[in-house]
Amino acid sequence: MTLSTLHTGSRRWALAEGYIPSWSNGPEPELESHETCCMLNTNDEDAAVTLTLYFEDREPVGPYQVTVPARRSLHLRFNDLKEPEAVPRGVAFATVIDSDRPIVVQHTRLDSRQAANSIMTTIAHPLSAPGWARPRSGRCRCRGVHTPDTPRA
Amino acid sequence: MTLSTLHTGSRRWALAEGYIPSWSNGPEPELESHETCCMLNTNDEDAAVTLTLYFEDREPVGPYQVTVPARRSLHLRFNDLKEPEAVPRGVAFATVIDSDRPIVVQHTRLDSRQAANSIMTTIAHPLSAPGWARPRSGRCRCRGVHTPDTPRA
Amino acid sequence: MTLSTLHTGSRRWALAEGYIPSWSNGPEPELESHETCCMLNTNDEDAAVTLTLYFEDREPVGPYQVTVPARRSLHLRFNDLKEPEAVPRGVAFATVIDSDRPIVVQHTRLDSRQAANSIMTTIAHPLSAPGWARPRSGRCRCRGVHTPDTPRA
Amino acid sequence: MTLSTLHTGSRRWALAEGYIPSWSNGPEPELESHETCCMLNTNDEDAAVTLTLYFEDREPVGPYQVTVPARRSLHLRFNDLKEPEAVPRGVAFATVIDSDRPIVVQHTRLDSRQAANSIMTTIAHPLSAPGWARPRSGRCRCRGVHTPDTPRA
Repeated sequence: MTLSTLHTGSRRWALAEGYIPSWSNGPEPELESHETCCMLNTNDEDAAVTLTLYFEDREPVGPYQVTVPARRSLHLRFNDLKEPEAVPRGVAFATVIDSDRPIVVQHTRLDSRQAANSIMTTIAHPLSAPGWARPRSGRCRCRGVHTPDTPRA
Repeated sequence: MTLSTLHTGSRRWALAEGYIPSWSNGPEPELESHETCCMLNTNDEDAAVTLTLYFEDREPVGPYQVTVPARRSLHLRFNDLKEPEAVPRGVAFATVIDSDRPIVVQHTRLDSRQAANSIMTTIAHPLSAPGWARPRSGRCRCRGVHTPDTPRA
Repeated sequence: MTLSTLHTGSRRWALAEGYIPSWSNGPEPELESHETCCMLNTNDEDAAVTLTLYFEDREPVGPYQVTVPARRSLHLRFNDLKEPEAVPRGVAFATVIDSDRPIVVQHTRLDSRQAANSIMTTIAHPLSAPGWARPRSGRCRCRGVHTPDTPRA
Repeated sequence: MTLSTLHTGSRRWALAEGYIPSWSNGPEPELESHETCCMLNTNDEDAAVTLTLYFEDREPVGPYQVTVPARRSLHLRFNDLKEPEAVPRGVAFATVIDSDRPIVVQHTRLDSRQAANSIMTTIAHPLSAPGWARPRSGRCRCRGVHTPDTPRA
């Protein structure tokens, strides 16, 4: 396997679902209802990450800034975000995650509003090309013979 | 990162699972059993979205039409769909989501038929090429030398 | 959007997780513990689907054969599979789903072994190229000038 | 469908979420809280798999080594990992899964800390190119006419 067929994630991810349940049952912090953005940075350099939250009835809020250190994971609870503003409870939102280095993002919620908690998870949706992809705009280095996929200037 | 390696989603998505549980425990609207299509439109223009529902024993129903405004999310409950017809409870279905602009789609269910609710989620399956993909039918602009992947006329 | 950038799914999918819980609480059939393979066929022709089950300690079992009619969904419970043999309860397995036409596959489990049921879901993993992908082995129709990605004979 | 459009998985996968709940309710082993890495090897040769765990506050731990036999699935509980060290309970982590042959990976958690268990699942995120992808660095075998996507030496 060559380097070109392995990669360390994507630089932009999206979550269309987001919601911090308004109340909880059970001991904190484990069983407090929460919404989490789990991030993995396998690179040897820190990743500077920004989150932008999209709501149903107002302009996006952000950037929320966080660092995922080199060779570390980070389970970031939306509950804990404070700047530029706290995330309201019981309100629907969505999130775009941007990173200056490739990372992997997974979304998890714990909902303990009733007597027994419930959990859900999904890998987020990558919005940038993985390392093995051939970008559509790849310029050809031919000697004037052709330019695949993009019109000649 | 160039524009060609970032994109804002896909224009067609699919969910093979769909089911609105027939009854609920807990306060409405939060804990009413529901099936949700979460959509994120990061574009600067509104997205006109249509949903088509596929059933096990009859022809597809739709289009259900909805707008996801520019820079907004929308958590659309299938429970609330009314035109062309309400979605029956306790019946299996699947959904195709079409949008005139790229969006991101995530599926979530809350099932409160028993005393403690349960939740599940997944990013939907994209059925259109992401922005970075090189479409199979991409015509070559070469000067008569070759046409990659598609036969010469 | 051209035909080349829209597709109707993949012809091979995989689920690495599979497990039918051994007991249940609640009314059948809704709340019987079950493992489901949800399939969507948006094509205008029926899809002939085969499932092959992979176990931890014996050879694969299958094919299980099922038809997903044109423009229909099918929520197939592994609980109901009978030929070539019933799926054992409380045993780990995995599944490969093959179809003669592109479909979309989503996996869902309902676990009601304790007083309140729990649910989980994920889109399955596609093991065939989507419609927009350029296959690696695509032969070039050039006039003897080059063969991208594959060595010349 | 040609071989080039079918594949048997990826050789590197990632999970950004990982967490073994610290306590449980219900009979073991079924209802002990657990975190599982489900793997499917459809190949006719065994797959040698290594897991590397990434934490929030210390260097990665691994490799954990396991074999997924030919034509078998394996539901590997993180709870059972022992070498090079046991996985701590109640601690956030993430995982990279490497295999010498293509496999499919799915992540599942069962959380039974409260009276009724909860489950969640997702297909992991592939970090290597699927079989149908054309790698970005694919060298062209042209006769000096062009080198798509990569600069000429």
